[in-house]
Amino acid sequence: MAHGYESGRLDLPFVGISTFGKRPYQPDWSALDADVAVIGAPFDFGTQWRSGARFGPRAVREASTLFSFGHAGAYDHEDDATYLPGSVKIVDMGDADIVHTDTEKSHANIETAVRAALAAKALPVVIGGDHSINIPCIRAFDDQGDFHILQIDAHLDFVDERHGVRHGHGNPMRRAAEQPYVTGLTQVGIRNVSSTAREGYEDARRMGSDILSVRQARKLGAQALSERIPAGARVYVTLDIDAFCPSIAPGTGTPSHGGFLYYEVLELLQHVAQTHDIIGIDLVEVAPDYDPTGSTSILAAQVLLNTLGFIFHARGHR
Amino acid sequence: MAHGYESGRLDLPFVGISTFGKRPYQPDWSALDADVAVIGAPFDFGTQWRSGARFGPRAVREASTLFSFGHAGAYDHEDDATYLPGSVKIVDMGDADIVHTDTEKSHANIETAVRAALAAKALPVVIGGDHSINIPCIRAFDDQGDFHILQIDAHLDFVDERHGVRHGHGNPMRRAAEQPYVTGLTQVGIRNVSSTAREGYEDARRMGSDILSVRQARKLGAQALSERIPAGARVYVTLDIDAFCPSIAPGTGTPSHGGFLYYEVLELLQHVAQTHDIIGIDLVEVAPDYDPTGSTSILAAQVLLNTLGFIFHARGHR
Amino acid sequence: MAHGYESGRLDLPFVGISTFGKRPYQPDWSALDADVAVIGAPFDFGTQWRSGARFGPRAVREASTLFSFGHAGAYDHEDDATYLPGSVKIVDMGDADIVHTDTEKSHANIETAVRAALAAKALPVVIGGDHSINIPCIRAFDDQGDFHILQIDAHLDFVDERHGVRHGHGNPMRRAAEQPYVTGLTQVGIRNVSSTAREGYEDARRMGSDILSVRQARKLGAQALSERIPAGARVYVTLDIDAFCPSIAPGTGTPSHGGFLYYEVLELLQHVAQTHDIIGIDLVEVAPDYDPTGSTSILAAQVLLNTLGFIFHARGHR
Amino acid sequence: MAHGYESGRLDLPFVGISTFGKRPYQPDWSALDADVAVIGAPFDFGTQWRSGARFGPRAVREASTLFSFGHAGAYDHEDDATYLPGSVKIVDMGDADIVHTDTEKSHANIETAVRAALAAKALPVVIGGDHSINIPCIRAFDDQGDFHILQIDAHLDFVDERHGVRHGHGNPMRRAAEQPYVTGLTQVGIRNVSSTAREGYEDARRMGSDILSVRQARKLGAQALSERIPAGARVYVTLDIDAFCPSIAPGTGTPSHGGFLYYEVLELLQHVAQTHDIIGIDLVEVAPDYDPTGSTSILAAQVLLNTLGFIFHARGHR
Amino acid sequence: MAHGYESGRLDLPFVGISTFGKRPYQPDWSALDADVAVIGAPFDFGTQWRSGARFGPRAVREASTLFSFGHAGAYDHEDDATYLPGSVKIVDMGDADIVHTDTEKSHANIETAVRAALAAKALPVVIGGDHSINIPCIRAFDDQGDFHILQIDAHLDFVDERHGVRHGHGNPMRRAAEQPYVTGLTQVGIRNVSSTAREGYEDARRMGSDILSVRQARKLGAQALSERIPAGARVYVTLDIDAFCPSIAPGTGTPSHGGFLYYEVLELLQHVAQTHDIIGIDLVEVAPDYDPTGSTSILAAQVLLNTLGFIFHARGHR
Amino acid sequence: MAHGYESGRLDLPFVGISTFGKRPYQPDWSALDADVAVIGAPFDFGTQWRSGARFGPRAVREASTLFSFGHAGAYDHEDDATYLPGSVKIVDMGDADIVHTDTEKSHANIETAVRAALAAKALPVVIGGDHSINIPCIRAFDDQGDFHILQIDAHLDFVDERHGVRHGHGNPMRRAAEQPYVTGLTQVGIRNVSSTAREGYEDARRMGSDILSVRQARKLGAQALSERIPAGARVYVTLDIDAFCPSIAPGTGTPSHGGFLYYEVLELLQHVAQTHDIIGIDLVEVAPDYDPTGSTSILAAQVLLNTLGFIFHARGHR
Repeated sequence: MAHGYESGRLDLPFVGISTFGKRPYQPDWSALDADVAVIGAPFDFGTQWRSGARFGPRAVREASTLFSFGHAGAYDHEDDATYLPGSVKIVDMGDADIVHTDTEKSHANIETAVRAALAAKALPVVIGGDHSINIPCIRAFDDQGDFHILQIDAHLDFVDERHGVRHGHGNPMRRAAEQPYVTGLTQVGIRNVSSTAREGYEDARRMGSDILSVRQARKLGAQALSERIPAGARVYVTLDIDAFCPSIAPGTGTPSHGGFLYYEVLELLQHVAQTHDIIGIDLVEVAPDYDPTGSTSILAAQVLLNTLGFIFHARGHR
Repeated sequence: MAHGYESGRLDLPFVGISTFGKRPYQPDWSALDADVAVIGAPFDFGTQWRSGARFGPRAVREASTLFSFGHAGAYDHEDDATYLPGSVKIVDMGDADIVHTDTEKSHANIETAVRAALAAKALPVVIGGDHSINIPCIRAFDDQGDFHILQIDAHLDFVDERHGVRHGHGNPMRRAAEQPYVTGLTQVGIRNVSSTAREGYEDARRMGSDILSVRQARKLGAQALSERIPAGARVYVTLDIDAFCPSIAPGTGTPSHGGFLYYEVLELLQHVAQTHDIIGIDLVEVAPDYDPTGSTSILAAQVLLNTLGFIFHARGHR
Repeated sequence: MAHGYESGRLDLPFVGISTFGKRPYQPDWSALDADVAVIGAPFDFGTQWRSGARFGPRAVREASTLFSFGHAGAYDHEDDATYLPGSVKIVDMGDADIVHTDTEKSHANIETAVRAALAAKALPVVIGGDHSINIPCIRAFDDQGDFHILQIDAHLDFVDERHGVRHGHGNPMRRAAEQPYVTGLTQVGIRNVSSTAREGYEDARRMGSDILSVRQARKLGAQALSERIPAGARVYVTLDIDAFCPSIAPGTGTPSHGGFLYYEVLELLQHVAQTHDIIGIDLVEVAPDYDPTGSTSILAAQVLLNTLGFIFHARGHR
Repeated sequence: MAHGYESGRLDLPFVGISTFGKRPYQPDWSALDADVAVIGAPFDFGTQWRSGARFGPRAVREASTLFSFGHAGAYDHEDDATYLPGSVKIVDMGDADIVHTDTEKSHANIETAVRAALAAKALPVVIGGDHSINIPCIRAFDDQGDFHILQIDAHLDFVDERHGVRHGHGNPMRRAAEQPYVTGLTQVGIRNVSSTAREGYEDARRMGSDILSVRQARKLGAQALSERIPAGARVYVTLDIDAFCPSIAPGTGTPSHGGFLYYEVLELLQHVAQTHDIIGIDLVEVAPDYDPTGSTSILAAQVLLNTLGFIFHARGHR
Repeated sequence: MAHGYESGRLDLPFVGISTFGKRPYQPDWSALDADVAVIGAPFDFGTQWRSGARFGPRAVREASTLFSFGHAGAYDHEDDATYLPGSVKIVDMGDADIVHTDTEKSHANIETAVRAALAAKALPVVIGGDHSINIPCIRAFDDQGDFHILQIDAHLDFVDERHGVRHGHGNPMRRAAEQPYVTGLTQVGIRNVSSTAREGYEDARRMGSDILSVRQARKLGAQALSERIPAGARVYVTLDIDAFCPSIAPGTGTPSHGGFLYYEVLELLQHVAQTHDIIGIDLVEVAPDYDPTGSTSILAAQVLLNTLGFIFHARGHR
Repeated sequence: MAHGYESGRLDLPFVGISTFGKRPYQPDWSALDADVAVIGAPFDFGTQWRSGARFGPRAVREASTLFSFGHAGAYDHEDDATYLPGSVKIVDMGDADIVHTDTEKSHANIETAVRAALAAKALPVVIGGDHSINIPCIRAFDDQGDFHILQIDAHLDFVDERHGVRHGHGNPMRRAAEQPYVTGLTQVGIRNVSSTAREGYEDARRMGSDILSVRQARKLGAQALSERIPAGARVYVTLDIDAFCPSIAPGTGTPSHGGFLYYEVLELLQHVAQTHDIIGIDLVEVAPDYDPTGSTSILAAQVLLNTLGFIFHARGHR
């Protein structure tokens, strides 16, 4: 007994080092042995309004400890299911190295981290950082076969280039759609004015996007929504926390009113996890300095842990 | 005219000492003469994540002054009713004494306060403090006949014992269910992962609990929900503010996304007040340091005052 | 090229002086040449609980820069429409002068500003300040013909006089209803206890008001709601930010739970803009010191810009 | 024993109703029996920058509970003295009534309260509110004989009239100097730019003021400073919290850098209390919404309680 | 009278558009006619810890309105001087355009703005942004003759290159020292650990720097300190707000305990302004999201306005 | 190269898992190999006013990353010394397990952790948590020989027992003085009213304490102060963050005005480290929820790292 306690530890949420879910920290990326590898990508030079997403990984990690009561798995009485039993191995890889003033190098380091997770056959879960970090994430999948992207977001992020900028947080979905191994995008939650102009929408549709607003998605419901993703497609999920209503996710750079409520996203992800193979996840734009109550970080941690639960439940870990 | 003003006082909400609803403060608990006796229970050593509920009673009292415009009663145009007319006597008993580091003594003092209210035939309304303060509240009812408990909460709070802890904020409903005079529990709003494991749910059901999640309760609606409480049962209401969605109640120790919206709880309480005799209330887990906008405290005060209005309206005070 | 950049400016939202929507500032009110004239009315001595609405105009202006990405117009993919194209001229007139301790003079200065906008044939858009600033706004319309008022608010604000106060933030709708050129009021969102007693409601109805709570309005829906406004009536809109749910609009003096969600108000205003001639707007009670996340200011800016878009889209600017 | 505890109460600071120092609340101003009468004056329509001092009385009261550990008197080891023993009777009179939009009535109500305290032979201690509340305080002393005023403040507050304003928070010292029974002013801490122009300083000096900046006062030291007050003069102390450095008193409307540190003011007040008869005190401009750490409210409460200790220690209560 | 007020405007600090000091906004940089040209440089991709300095220009501008009471000049009773009389023309040029993800372009745009000010013979005052914005500022002076730099800062910022970074906020003084027209640096306030290693200090001294810690500077006093700047040298002042103690300047990215107090910096700048020709100023690293009380922004505005007052007082504007 | 970066990592402060100083985490306490072992003790049930120190260890750890720029050691130009070179091995042991509602068990777990550090011959550095955690820390030294305690604190913490409480945060110094192996206490910074009454001071002096207020300590200076500690004594340092002025340490439960400034404590610790053998350290009462700017956590981390630097510099690590 390493800590010398005769009766184990109670391990309350506020106790202990803040790794994701209090899972083991593995800084040696060549020695990963895990089903899920969590990576922090604290990059925020791509933001166009409020910055601060660089502290997103730390905030989400700390919030995730709220869900770590030291049980074996998490029992959900609504589903009468125990999610994330001990058989699911999650490790925290720590953060990709960020070089201030240098977008290219920082993105390259994020790509390196994701490649390391993939090399270890772990599901990469990347916590941003602003949405531009999706760009190196997608790049890292260039040898992983074809897949579809499910983007849950307030903004289309489909700007090609403005003033030379091609790798800011308004560009990632355009960059993704350009990859030959990305077979299409489902973009849900898109609403209100943003940095994407009319042409962006037209381009996206032409390049294979299915674009749905919150009201449109709400009318369909979670199941019909998940069925718009091509059957059989492997799915990469990119979740911008501003997809949610600012009432529960105010801690983000560019909040947009009229967003999704909690169960809407949860149920969508549950359906997708049941019907498709999810091969990668990023959750971006948590900016804790705009989250004085902690609501946003807790939401991010809760959604990530639940989604992982759904994925591995579908894979037979129950 | 005590204050020497010829024309009475306007008494704006921000003016005056913060007792509950600006009602009289009665520190002499042997001299209570009231229909409702409000008690502060500023105890928070039972928390497992963020503390600070010790300042709950003060925050709810201050917020309650917002609803004290000096009118005779509160007119609600939707119900076309005037609630809490002058005939309903509410007094503020102040707080139970708390002894730091000592859960047992602090709980005993809370029990003493509730017994004093009951001895005076007043409806006890206890403002926590963390949910463990429900334990001494229920104990104080040991000579008051049988009753049913309506718990509105995100968490089941049905842990028996872990590491010797039996009186923390994860245990109260288990302690309540053990009392011979508690005939059953209706537990609504329960959702997500918490300190109660699967066995807790099984135990609760075996000991007579009816457990409903937010989505399950929402599907039923307020009336059907209230009808699940045994007809004729006298009801004790314990309301954990984290039953509500963090969007309106972020100021609490362990917020849980996907909670109730305002009217859902309001209408449930209105129905119950119309059909059952409510014999005691506690409202717990308001932690004002996580409530920078005041939204949570205002919600707590508003729900308490409305519920009291419903109860005494049903009793004929109109 | 004034700034010396060869390629124009990217003009990110966080860059530049905070006028409303980054539109031109015109301090010379005799030289206005605009379709829309935005006026700040930073007056808050009329508040009965939390003050601070004096900083509302600055906060809404800064938030409005979030919606200024330097495009020509704002494309909305749900409506497939481009709102506020370059042909709609918006100017920021700055603020009316406020004289501390002196309600009368401050109100007179606000009236002067609105008269200047009207003299220039611009649509006046006044950003409060507390709701009492509606009083001088309505006064300024005394030579503009008859009109109807659509009030979206949590509170009826129909107090006649208490302790001599006739121009506080609980009085404006009474003052408006007294004007011969105000033909009636539609008051939506009214809920919960406030400074208006039962008599206020009775007076309002007798003087021609149609009063609807949030739940009543929700049941009707946006279209039916807009149809309760007399057909053909020219409409002045007064929007108290506390009409919204505190979950998205906590930054206000007297938040009231159970308010409108975003789309409910948006769709109501869209319908009204399509069917009626909107001749003036005020948006009041944004108090940024209670808005640590910026959610309230962003909501205010977003609703104002969207409403202006709807109005001028209906007038043919597309 | 009213509360039924066999062993008395521990009465921790966070427990109990927030009256000043947890002393008795006496709303019947004709029945005052006290050495010190504490009055709240929650008026802030006189502010020229940030408002919110209306919540000053509540915040200072709550902070004052930190100094109420239930001991008999407060032992200070540096002075080897016990201050405020049980023989000093302090009561809290609650707040003067405030009428929104109406400076004159609100000020009149404050005057009434101070007169009530004086009529009971109690030392009035008024907690603002903005500095304009000093105006009715001084008026209430019109039948109390001559006295000198010691103002500790960042701002001279000596504006005669601008735009008709004579009773805002930039005017009180001018109003005081005009009273025949005010024999002179010592104004310390005055620094930086403010609403008082050069003429204000010249007028003040002509009307008998001794004006000292922080650096000038610091060079003199507390004793020499106190000796500039005419020997034998009875002294009224008006303390604007912005006299202090914003490092310890950020929670105020118009903070001014370069202010006093804690011991500088404390020692000045200790000297004055030892050598002069202090006949009234007001402490103004605490604005808790700008005080997220509570530092300012705690400072205000600490200085008030210490000063009362010094006064009654000098009067023989030890 | 543009606004139609017969008696002018009172123009309280909280009223009006937030340009620097409420001075005129001149977006046409080819038409500058001013003694002082204020430029915002909202760039913060160079930060190594907390970001958010992009909102520094807006925050400092808003705080500066506190010092704009509508007087002709600012009277300081300690100096018995009126600073910044109407004869000193200050204009606000707005912000340099910033391109997210692109340090080079953003810096180039800042350089353009400073060149425009210099071309108009105005004193450029640049508000950051992080300290890297000093790099383009100094570049813009390449045709302005030789000068000395006075840096007031917690950090040496003398890193040459790490991981390819040469233009982050740890590099500016190295970049400046490399310019042939920079004759030397006086670096005061330097303390504690930072991104500059021992070699950085050695390099700096070798390249002509005079490095002084806060304690060393304090021992010397303001006058002796100012005398260490070569007599006759023209001086460019770069003031990092973190030179100040976090007690008064918490709102910055990398606060460092043990910093300067207000008068220490003020008196140093006053001495330098009296003895040297100040040819340019930048004030950097104000990050308002870490400044909940506004203390830091107010400090920045106050120091800038005072310094300008000293400079033009020395030049004969009194 | 574990992370796959060819050129090492830049490792900016905001990047990476928050262990203390980004040093290795060693959860296996039987395998410690370190000169310094950092332990979190997130216990706060002993507080008598504001709680929240349970989050102190996490906050101090995160702040400590600000001082981890990836250099080999930290160069201080004032001392011309490099502190904490690679030869000093620091590990983070994580936190002692805390059992809510149970002071005894929680304290026992803290004691276990300190014993583990001592068993490994590492210097234990314990981050609280409230000051009661000093009790188990001192207990763990029962087999380490005699030593003297240097307490730097606002409060004497010498209460014997009240209402049965003997292990709250008002009792630790009494408990320490009772230990036979504690040869005496030097208690500096003690000021103002607190939970210790006059008898506490008398008891402390009788039991061997040297008590000094801030003003008394300031008059002596750091060197004279350090000389009051018996020559040759081994010293345990307990540092309550509220010893500091609330201007730099507002984030604590019971702030007390008039505290130490940064250099005063730093220089005292530097002197003591040079002249005495420091055998253990605890730093307590950091409560991050009252520290919105981060100033307090940064102070705590900075003082701890500097003190460790002084200790090992004195031991020859340079």
